[in-house]
Amino acid sequence: MAKAPVLTPRAVDFPRWYQDLINKAELADNGPVRGTMVIRPYGYGLWERMQAEMDARIKESGASNAYFPLFIPQSYLTREAEHVEGFAPELAVVTHGGGKELEEPVVVRPTSETIVNDYFAKWVQSYRDLPLLINQWANVVRWELRPRVFLRTTEFLWQEGHTAHATYEDARDYAAHIHRNVYADFMENVLAMDVLAGRKTAAERFAGAINTLTLEGMMGDGKALQLGTSHELGQNFAKAFHTQYLSKDGRQEYVWQTSWGSTTRMVGALVMMHGDDDGLRVPPRLAQIQVVVLGVKDDAAVVAEVREIGERLTAAGIRVRVDDRTDIPFGRRAVDWELKGVPVRIEVGPRDLENGTAMLVRRIPGGKAPVALDALAGLLPQILDEDQALLLRQSRERRESRTTDVTTVEEAVEAATAGGWARIPWAVLGEEGEARLAEHAVTVRCLVAADGSVPDADDAPGNVAVVARAY
Amino acid sequence: MAKAPVLTPRAVDFPRWYQDLINKAELADNGPVRGTMVIRPYGYGLWERMQAEMDARIKESGASNAYFPLFIPQSYLTREAEHVEGFAPELAVVTHGGGKELEEPVVVRPTSETIVNDYFAKWVQSYRDLPLLINQWANVVRWELRPRVFLRTTEFLWQEGHTAHATYEDARDYAAHIHRNVYADFMENVLAMDVLAGRKTAAERFAGAINTLTLEGMMGDGKALQLGTSHELGQNFAKAFHTQYLSKDGRQEYVWQTSWGSTTRMVGALVMMHGDDDGLRVPPRLAQIQVVVLGVKDDAAVVAEVREIGERLTAAGIRVRVDDRTDIPFGRRAVDWELKGVPVRIEVGPRDLENGTAMLVRRIPGGKAPVALDALAGLLPQILDEDQALLLRQSRERRESRTTDVTTVEEAVEAATAGGWARIPWAVLGEEGEARLAEHAVTVRCLVAADGSVPDADDAPGNVAVVARAY
Repeated sequence: MAKAPVLTPRAVDFPRWYQDLINKAELADNGPVRGTMVIRPYGYGLWERMQAEMDARIKESGASNAYFPLFIPQSYLTREAEHVEGFAPELAVVTHGGGKELEEPVVVRPTSETIVNDYFAKWVQSYRDLPLLINQWANVVRWELRPRVFLRTTEFLWQEGHTAHATYEDARDYAAHIHRNVYADFMENVLAMDVLAGRKTAAERFAGAINTLTLEGMMGDGKALQLGTSHELGQNFAKAFHTQYLSKDGRQEYVWQTSWGSTTRMVGALVMMHGDDDGLRVPPRLAQIQVVVLGVKDDAAVVAEVREIGERLTAAGIRVRVDDRTDIPFGRRAVDWELKGVPVRIEVGPRDLENGTAMLVRRIPGGKAPVALDALAGLLPQILDEDQALLLRQSRERRESRTTDVTTVEEAVEAATAGGWARIPWAVLGEEGEARLAEHAVTVRCLVAADGSVPDADDAPGNVAVVARAY
Repeated sequence: MAKAPVLTPRAVDFPRWYQDLINKAELADNGPVRGTMVIRPYGYGLWERMQAEMDARIKESGASNAYFPLFIPQSYLTREAEHVEGFAPELAVVTHGGGKELEEPVVVRPTSETIVNDYFAKWVQSYRDLPLLINQWANVVRWELRPRVFLRTTEFLWQEGHTAHATYEDARDYAAHIHRNVYADFMENVLAMDVLAGRKTAAERFAGAINTLTLEGMMGDGKALQLGTSHELGQNFAKAFHTQYLSKDGRQEYVWQTSWGSTTRMVGALVMMHGDDDGLRVPPRLAQIQVVVLGVKDDAAVVAEVREIGERLTAAGIRVRVDDRTDIPFGRRAVDWELKGVPVRIEVGPRDLENGTAMLVRRIPGGKAPVALDALAGLLPQILDEDQALLLRQSRERRESRTTDVTTVEEAVEAATAGGWARIPWAVLGEEGEARLAEHAVTVRCLVAADGSVPDADDAPGNVAVVARAY
């Protein structure tokens, strides 16, 4: 007997499948103001775990958290020419406060480079104050014309790192360190997401940066999504805000800076990377709930047993939820946990108890089998490790199988519009070819070196452009 | 030899002492937009530890974190009459977004009861969905005419809890639970702050609440500061937003609600409650740095020893910072750690090494003494416990010694203007007396029952009003 699908199948309509999943797994709702979102507890729980894992890596990298104001004087934005050009069309502007029209309107931060530099200029005096390594967890606002929940929202949550260094090399190395040891490490090892590390072309760089490093993920439909980015800002903001330090040999020098960010978009990426037609699949290392223990029927012995299993597994260091809501039909609860992508379900009914077993259902590879109750705690860590590895492998295999090497712009457009990525030598494509791709809504996601590493320069010999349609 | 004071002494000018301390201990700077603040890493570190301790207590109380949008349609605010009257004068209004004038202006949230109810009305269907227990960590904006950093800022950080219940009793009990087991427990046991638990009078209630529970702290100058508040909202917002549920017996009923909040103001309270003329004193259970180990001189053996002590104490579960920045004069570093209020300093110089000792300096009770190096790890846990207890005791003794029982409005005003709190029977004071106090900038901080508990009603027999000047 075929189940009626709970979600629109991905093959029928991928964007609708995404929206269905977000709603039915109770990840988020659209907000009342266009482009905003309400992150529901289950969706926010994913973000909280992301925050905890990222925050630990950021602190290990030597940065401290701080908080800068939401409101930025409009005049600050205009001090760095490229920056204002990039952000002006997306700004939300507060014109009234406390019942009066403001003398100078303030913008709601779209990012904080300008206001951060205003303070770095005060805090940095001498080379002894460098490097200055700051991170902020905050909300930002960028007015979106075509919003999509988690992926492009008018307000989103993120972390933004801001650092100042004495030399170009130190700034460059720190941006690369964050790119590799914070973002790529987190995405691969916690989110189980295959990501491609590369360098943005000049056309795709952050407004005000001299270099942008990116991580690009391939979604379930073959499109690309930009995940964390790390920027070398050079001395652009330092010159605009007079952020200077006294060097060891007694000269006033401008600092070299970086900024780097990652956002709630990662929740959307998780859905589009690992989701299937039954719902989300959450990597065990990320999951707030790694294992849910379900009582099948309203039976005192069953309820007692699921609670005891819950305690035993919690004691074994597994993140467990006990679902003993036997006043809700079992089938509805099972579908709900499947939608929410909890890696393992342990289902216990009266007949299982008689046999001393439980049904162990694996969401990630699929499949179910009875397992002896006293074997559960021993089996689960290995199962969770396997599932974590499987998700990463599946996402890597998807990218590899859907990436084509091409030699012309036409072939690149064809591969991208067919739902894949194309690799084309940058020496062949160039900025002119990049402009031609744009006519077909195809973009250069990043440049990679011939050996797969991140190139030092746009025009390094052997650079390959990876092109795709993108969210 | 008398030291030149680093801060304006409290007895000379308490508000200036506060501002000096905030600046010199590097807790925060004023932001460029009037009333906003930049929370610097050391100040933010205090807030992060507060968040972690509070968040654990909130989750133990069954609430889940979620996130609602920053922007609220202006029309939402007007649906609950008292609420809009309370907040309208403080709103920041966004009139332009994405380069265009908005059709309906949006307000930057001053609090989220309205937008939360818009979603609770969708999410709550039946009694099975109740209680619905949500918490949010966020920034909010209330335009301030007389801002003061941490205490009253146009933007501040907070947590706001929002819950919906099937019955009046369940909502009332939950508000009381948060008041006692989250807020009072955290403030007394982590912040080491004596707080008075009571009930707000009708004049001082949250706009839209039927009852507000409060915790009031006495600052170093005898003024009061309102810390966490918990509100019973009755069915006011439920009726305005049609937040209804299907009861067990099949009827549509309005939910009963609570909301409760605590803010970055607690950082200011920490300063004004525990600070002295040398700086801040951080309670050990809160401190991100409980012990700092300082190398006195640039000497290889000294630097090696302080690092080893750091590792040993970290292994013993103490939060340690090693300060081996011997290129900065020792005296400057010692004063800085004193300003920042780190509970214990361990100072190691070449002569100490010869003796196999270190100088142990206690910030909270004051005093220093040499201690054998191998005794440190064993001694510190008890020292930190003593210091934690001492701060709580000192704040309690301050309140007790500066609180006077009075029987007339005139005596109450006199006690409050002299820098203390007065207790006056509510039956004597009443709303008329409360209005007379206001003429002298004195307010009823809260009502307490004759036995010191929190009264069930404003007019319960034996209620005592505690009155004071307040921040």
